[in-house]
Amino acid sequence: MSGKVVGRLLGAGDGRLSGLGAAICEGVAPLLGDGSRMVGVARTAGGLTSTEGQVKKASAKVEFIPVVLDLGVASKADMENALKSAFGGANVPSPSRVLIFHNAGSLGSLKYLKDQVDQQHVQHSVVTLNALFMGMVRSLAPSAAIEVINISSLCAVQPFKSWGLYCAGKAGRDMLFKVLAAEEPNVTVLNYAPGPLDNDMQMIARTETADDGLRSVFSSMKNEGKLLPCSTSVGKLIDILNSKKFKSGDHVDYYDE
Amino acid sequence: MSGKVVGRLLGAGDGRLSGLGAAICEGVAPLLGDGSRMVGVARTAGGLTSTEGQVKKASAKVEFIPVVLDLGVASKADMENALKSAFGGANVPSPSRVLIFHNAGSLGSLKYLKDQVDQQHVQHSVVTLNALFMGMVRSLAPSAAIEVINISSLCAVQPFKSWGLYCAGKAGRDMLFKVLAAEEPNVTVLNYAPGPLDNDMQMIARTETADDGLRSVFSSMKNEGKLLPCSTSVGKLIDILNSKKFKSGDHVDYYDE
Repeated sequence: MSGKVVGRLLGAGDGRLSGLGAAICEGVAPLLGDGSRMVGVARTAGGLTSTEGQVKKASAKVEFIPVVLDLGVASKADMENALKSAFGGANVPSPSRVLIFHNAGSLGSLKYLKDQVDQQHVQHSVVTLNALFMGMVRSLAPSAAIEVINISSLCAVQPFKSWGLYCAGKAGRDMLFKVLAAEEPNVTVLNYAPGPLDNDMQMIARTETADDGLRSVFSSMKNEGKLLPCSTSVGKLIDILNSKKFKSGDHVDYYDE
Repeated sequence: MSGKVVGRLLGAGDGRLSGLGAAICEGVAPLLGDGSRMVGVARTAGGLTSTEGQVKKASAKVEFIPVVLDLGVASKADMENALKSAFGGANVPSPSRVLIFHNAGSLGSLKYLKDQVDQQHVQHSVVTLNALFMGMVRSLAPSAAIEVINISSLCAVQPFKSWGLYCAGKAGRDMLFKVLAAEEPNVTVLNYAPGPLDNDMQMIARTETADDGLRSVFSSMKNEGKLLPCSTSVGKLIDILNSKKFKSGDHVDYYDE
């Protein structure tokens, strides 16, 4: 992902742009070539504005395009319009490499399954977004190398008490991206589990997890300084992407190897 | 699952009660003791009526209680009322063993992910139903042995082209039941992949699967007589439950061992 390799970059993340999402933008920016574009998608404008500042500081070569969109409720037309306004226009140069980061971090309810009687499981429109995005990239740049990175979790492969909805969501998401890898042999797909991050999500995990044992594990990790800075995990993610040692569709954890 | 072991049985399946769901009811009925209750939950009454007839033929000892309920849209109150009317009443004897079968077989759209731009992923209220059901069973029969069987699929562990939504749903569902197994050490949970069944679902698979290669695999299996009768797969499921050789939460396939 050196400046020489990357001609232009189009990037999109979903969810709130803070914590890991912002760290991905900040960490990737310095590696991009002149004229690269980075599109940040988030539910609210606040995080996007601060992320734009971080990206500008990290690299003067990258244009950051903020898109406010709640993928939990956005329609196909909403997404299409947002993507067109971000990537459209005759003056947009054709990208040679495209990275799409999916970072949907919503924890949902952290209760035991037996107590989940009023849960509503929000479905993110990740499939629709991917379909629209890839269609658009292909019409703009038929020969662009596309890499799709799904921010996964240890919860995708291991059950955790009182985290049932989150685990199920992450497991289903991983499989969705495995299918994408099978369907699209020219797209590189990575399910990356970033490790336990020192971010807002972990703060919620420490306080709201219903299971006493798991909640105290989260507290201990914080107290013993075992949580990872988001930037550290992003560094590892970039190493993994550059190493190309994974098979498209694989689940790779921060702690692997 | 002999008549001696099972005192009473309460069973619930979700989805349309036909094919595998009906075969489960029919296959399990002869193994149940006198006074057992079997509750069938389905979206429409038609399949329930024919299943009731099959169960009566299979065993005179079992009372079949049809419940028409669409779990895709049912509220918590709908489910609670349906369960109460099926299991309530002072004259209902306390069960010693309870089996819950989850058989949600909706295939959804069988298109490539890149073409899935208008999909709506229906979330079955499996979590809510389980929570209500287990709460009710425990108040009725605190010492009943509870077994929960999720009808899973090879699609839960292996990606198939143009089956992305189904694969993701099954993978997520498997994980949900793994978490249930972790949370409830006194409940036995099995994720059972029934193999390729000679049922309506396979007919849809043969005709509607977008991926040419996969569609022709399905056709070949049908033409070469490799699809399993539902009753054969149910027989294997009963063997697995009786053998107790699996660990609670495991994914076990018809072809395993």
